Amino acid sequence: MLVHISKDCLTIAIQHVLKAVSASTPVPILTGIHIQAFDEEVILTASNSSLTIQYRISQHQTMNVLRPGRIVIPAKYMYEVVRKCDKGIITLEVVDPRVLTIRTEHSFIRLSGMDPEEFPVIHDVTNFSKLQIQLNSVQFNSCIKQVTGVVSTAENRPVLTGVRLSYSNELLHMTATDGIRFASRTLKVENKTNISGSAIVPGKNLYEVSKILDHEEHTVEIEIGLKLIRFTSQNIVIQSNLLEGVYPVTHSVIPTSCISDVIVNTSLLMQALERATVLASERVVRIEATSNNLEIKSTLDMIGDVLDQVPMNKHIGEHFNISFNGKFLKDIINSITSDDVRIQFTGKMSPLVIQPLDEKLGDTIFLITPVRTAI
Amino acid sequence: MLVHISKDCLTIAIQHVLKAVSASTPVPILTGIHIQAFDEEVILTASNSSLTIQYRISQHQTMNVLRPGRIVIPAKYMYEVVRKCDKGIITLEVVDPRVLTIRTEHSFIRLSGMDPEEFPVIHDVTNFSKLQIQLNSVQFNSCIKQVTGVVSTAENRPVLTGVRLSYSNELLHMTATDGIRFASRTLKVENKTNISGSAIVPGKNLYEVSKILDHEEHTVEIEIGLKLIRFTSQNIVIQSNLLEGVYPVTHSVIPTSCISDVIVNTSLLMQALERATVLASERVVRIEATSNNLEIKSTLDMIGDVLDQVPMNKHIGEHFNISFNGKFLKDIINSITSDDVRIQFTGKMSPLVIQPLDEKLGDTIFLITPVRTAI
Repeated sequence: MLVHISKDCLTIAIQHVLKAVSASTPVPILTGIHIQAFDEEVILTASNSSLTIQYRISQHQTMNVLRPGRIVIPAKYMYEVVRKCDKGIITLEVVDPRVLTIRTEHSFIRLSGMDPEEFPVIHDVTNFSKLQIQLNSVQFNSCIKQVTGVVSTAENRPVLTGVRLSYSNELLHMTATDGIRFASRTLKVENKTNISGSAIVPGKNLYEVSKILDHEEHTVEIEIGLKLIRFTSQNIVIQSNLLEGVYPVTHSVIPTSCISDVIVNTSLLMQALERATVLASERVVRIEATSNNLEIKSTLDMIGDVLDQVPMNKHIGEHFNISFNGKFLKDIINSITSDDVRIQFTGKMSPLVIQPLDEKLGDTIFLITPVRTAI
Repeated sequence: MLVHISKDCLTIAIQHVLKAVSASTPVPILTGIHIQAFDEEVILTASNSSLTIQYRISQHQTMNVLRPGRIVIPAKYMYEVVRKCDKGIITLEVVDPRVLTIRTEHSFIRLSGMDPEEFPVIHDVTNFSKLQIQLNSVQFNSCIKQVTGVVSTAENRPVLTGVRLSYSNELLHMTATDGIRFASRTLKVENKTNISGSAIVPGKNLYEVSKILDHEEHTVEIEIGLKLIRFTSQNIVIQSNLLEGVYPVTHSVIPTSCISDVIVNTSLLMQALERATVLASERVVRIEATSNNLEIKSTLDMIGDVLDQVPMNKHIGEHFNISFNGKFLKDIINSITSDDVRIQFTGKMSPLVIQPLDEKLGDTIFLITPVRTAI
């Protein structure tokens, strides 16, 4: 293998695949990045037991393959060394089946490699898919950020650490819950297919997908297989395992009627919650809808208290007061990008229904279960 | 106490004094910020057992004292709450001898305070000083950053955790060492005084001083007393305790002759050290002066090695090779702001002498002791 490549181009490629390298793995080969040089492209791949990321660099002005070949190089050292190389063209050469040299004008670095034959392959595209859909990356990305925010981190119910993706009638529904919060969003797909299907994707892998896609607007292709899901966008392929089991929550948990319906400015509400959570014993924040304001209250024993008034743009229905885990509520409001937010009170012991007020965002809904308080 | 003050002005004041609040202290009052409102200024003070910082806000467009008074408020909560307040004017009022209210248009926050009588006072300026000197803040600041970098962190010789300041003949000498490295710099003072004197200041306090002074160019006044040192710059007063004991190192440790004298570009050397330290077993980095280059070499067992060539601008004397703790050497080179750096080899087991090549920087000198290696 002999490749000329610009430092910037190689650094970006490594940064992308690095997210699939786990810091500690019992499989030494997985601490590495698989570098493959073909006649007209270089492919970098990294994988842990659950997530595989592949980044393709096509031959162009600042990348040129002089001799194909492949090697696996410890990711951590590869990244640190390349990041600290001088700007400009770097020459990568495999000089011995297991040694990669990295050269610039004044630097000569050698890194011991591992056997590329041992590296797990990314599965072939053909015969992989039972369902293929295409989505707008910006919408998909914002959707992931909203639903993964409420994914459970408790390992006792593994299925809740995932996000349920289900496709039917040209709509993709994404659903997540941790038992206290519930988030759901529906997206229109760009292509049409009659096949319907569903899958539970590990929330943390989906979050990595959103971080990698967080760039310009383009099309993401999703392929769902029996045990794997794959996301393809431009020169990046991300493959994740699926979680097994039955997802316990459906849209039937969403209350169909409400006692009180309030609309407030999202950022005013967010700022009030930010202040309230500073002084909140056991994170409890109280919400009271009075005649003109949504009042946000909290108290921290021996230290102090906060009373914030968020003006209501609209209020239909009864006054109410109800308490929540302030951090959980803040996470939900923080993931909402619309100017205004609708809050529906459905009963003292029932979940609050929270929805962004923006047609473009499609059908997004959050639920949050109240906490019981003494008063 | 009743004060109108802009959020930005109050936030900056709190951020400055916050550096003297220790996260854990057995003295509850020291978790607080002492807020004093006088007729025409507000003074914020925070203190730990070793460092006291005072920030004065004069009456102006965005600060107005309506009723003087004082209180001590838990620093952590005060900062978090003010930081999260809406932009604009904040009203601070002591409504009960021990409760501070913080009001904005929509927010009403109460914080329990502590008795200001218990707060340690900053000592009166009169009768404090035995020595008063004035320095340029930018020069003093860069000087602190260079010498505090080599201060010892080991508590077994407390005196080495300090920096020695000594003044005589219109020159201030600052010296620090951790036993392996030595740094010294001399600054011209702006005023003239016939009194000479010296003090050992805790390195970490001096580092806080440099962070606080890190703004525009102005004059810093230093007053050295028997047990305290005080730094005054514009509206900030910082007072630190002094370390007791005799500082063990003097300028006599600086070698007076050398075997080899090399000049290289500082940033090229720094970049080479950055790469070498990625692959350095036990942090050992080897330096070799050949005919044209200063070669930087390192090896990490089983992983790889680095060879970097830094072109020499000048080389007088013999070829040499010598090994150092790469991180220690990198810290020194990183604190040098001049374009070029002079390196003097004084013997296989003697310290390397490192000096910035810039007349403006005055008389700065670093020493670093080599590590013994098998070859």
